[in-house]
Amino acid sequence: MMRFIVGTGLSGQGVFLVDGEWAWNLTAIDGRVGTDLRPLIEGSVDLNSLAGQKNKVDAEPVTSLTPGLPVIRPGKIICLGLNYVDHIKEGGYDVPVYPALFMRCTTSMIPAGAPMVRPSCSEQLDYEAELMVIIGKGGKHISEKDALDHVFGYTLFNDGSVREYQRKTHQWTPGKNFDATGPIGPVIVTPDELPEGADGLKIESRVGTEILQSATTSDMLWSVARTIATVSEFSTLEPGDLLAMGTPPGVGHAKKPPRWLRPGETVEVEIEGIGICANPIVAEEDQVTTEAAE
Amino acid sequence: MMRFIVGTGLSGQGVFLVDGEWAWNLTAIDGRVGTDLRPLIEGSVDLNSLAGQKNKVDAEPVTSLTPGLPVIRPGKIICLGLNYVDHIKEGGYDVPVYPALFMRCTTSMIPAGAPMVRPSCSEQLDYEAELMVIIGKGGKHISEKDALDHVFGYTLFNDGSVREYQRKTHQWTPGKNFDATGPIGPVIVTPDELPEGADGLKIESRVGTEILQSATTSDMLWSVARTIATVSEFSTLEPGDLLAMGTPPGVGHAKKPPRWLRPGETVEVEIEGIGICANPIVAEEDQVTTEAAE
Repeated sequence: MMRFIVGTGLSGQGVFLVDGEWAWNLTAIDGRVGTDLRPLIEGSVDLNSLAGQKNKVDAEPVTSLTPGLPVIRPGKIICLGLNYVDHIKEGGYDVPVYPALFMRCTTSMIPAGAPMVRPSCSEQLDYEAELMVIIGKGGKHISEKDALDHVFGYTLFNDGSVREYQRKTHQWTPGKNFDATGPIGPVIVTPDELPEGADGLKIESRVGTEILQSATTSDMLWSVARTIATVSEFSTLEPGDLLAMGTPPGVGHAKKPPRWLRPGETVEVEIEGIGICANPIVAEEDQVTTEAAE
Repeated sequence: MMRFIVGTGLSGQGVFLVDGEWAWNLTAIDGRVGTDLRPLIEGSVDLNSLAGQKNKVDAEPVTSLTPGLPVIRPGKIICLGLNYVDHIKEGGYDVPVYPALFMRCTTSMIPAGAPMVRPSCSEQLDYEAELMVIIGKGGKHISEKDALDHVFGYTLFNDGSVREYQRKTHQWTPGKNFDATGPIGPVIVTPDELPEGADGLKIESRVGTEILQSATTSDMLWSVARTIATVSEFSTLEPGDLLAMGTPPGVGHAKKPPRWLRPGETVEVEIEGIGICANPIVAEEDQVTTEAAE
């Protein structure tokens, strides 16, 4: 029963154990914890023993934390494209007999709270509220029955998509991999905090009071367990790998007229029992980056 | 004008400078070189100065080297799916106006010489001879004019594909990411060793005396420069990123009858001026792995 936020607090960078409004920097207790979840996932440090020592450091308010990426360089990020029946229909696709899988790369990922960038080449930046699975124990040919033993925890994901580029060809890669379009986090919860397989949880996306998507994870065609079994049939899962579970209906490109994310807005993804991932939208041309400054 | 092989030789693991039949372990001269190309790519070590000191170590025969991965954990591996007109036609696709891009993950990659695994769930293991670009200097919004300045070197790639899983849905990810299906290497050549953009080079794949694919890199629709410009429009390229340039016609699934790779065969990819990437095919069920032993 643990909740974590990876990030920077009053005590510096680290992995924070979270309880209600308070957080304890586990990295300040034991340097081996490091700056992302990987050492904990890989079992380099005994988590229960560490959690028992939390009072060795001062509690700090969760609101003082600036979240970072839960896993800085995951081995792979595999995403389900069409996993909620009503979202499949709104996109004009047939209900598939195998999940539509694509990948994201780390340059597309950002922490909760960080600016989500609308690129200068397209205004079609869309949101997708998703459950994100963080793999714990790795493996190949994992059975559906054993699959949930391979989950380290669950977090939130906004599978930000530039639709114009997603549909340039039949392969979605470009539209799913624009820099800084994939917010993840901030809270990672261990599986025992949630119903089995994170099933039956309300999932929403919003801008202010405007509810964009509202559904339940029970509507997923492929459950977490079945997805782990399916992916591990072809690819060895490694500790820290990420599996994004697909999005419910209500995405911007399917609304009439389309509802693209606009600079100045803040988009929120929420899943019951996990938390909220909120990110401001900024226009690429308004970003000050080293590239732009060249 | 340099050629490298990353791997293990008589002198241990390292990055080897290659000249004809001989190799020198640069890592044995300067430990900062490490066990893959990344430190050289990132400029942590001055390559010219280092190459000048090669006689500090004994030359060893290239044949004594066991190749490793040129970059062990690249930030991303982006692949062009349809980049030779005649290969597009044999697959039944239209000539696209934008490249079909997909990704591979590191668990799918193996060094030249290592066993290429035909999975137990499908016999449809196919070869794809490809030019592989290793990114040197990173960047975003790289112009086609400047793009070749961002190439560290070129190597060989066999974009091994399990066709049955590639076409389970419209997204190719599963069929392109089976464990141990993507041989890369062994020789990495710097751009000044080859024509500009590695253009006009003969590219072949073979099993024994059977020529499977034979074409020239001049037939690529998207040149190396144009591909770098296209990808960096949406994604920041980082040092060590890999770009696979697509395959010419002659793949197994388009032959009548289909020509799948069979255990016991050795598949070779050759590009003029770079070398040969040869890998034996083994059946997954004949592999002794820790997973299988569980």
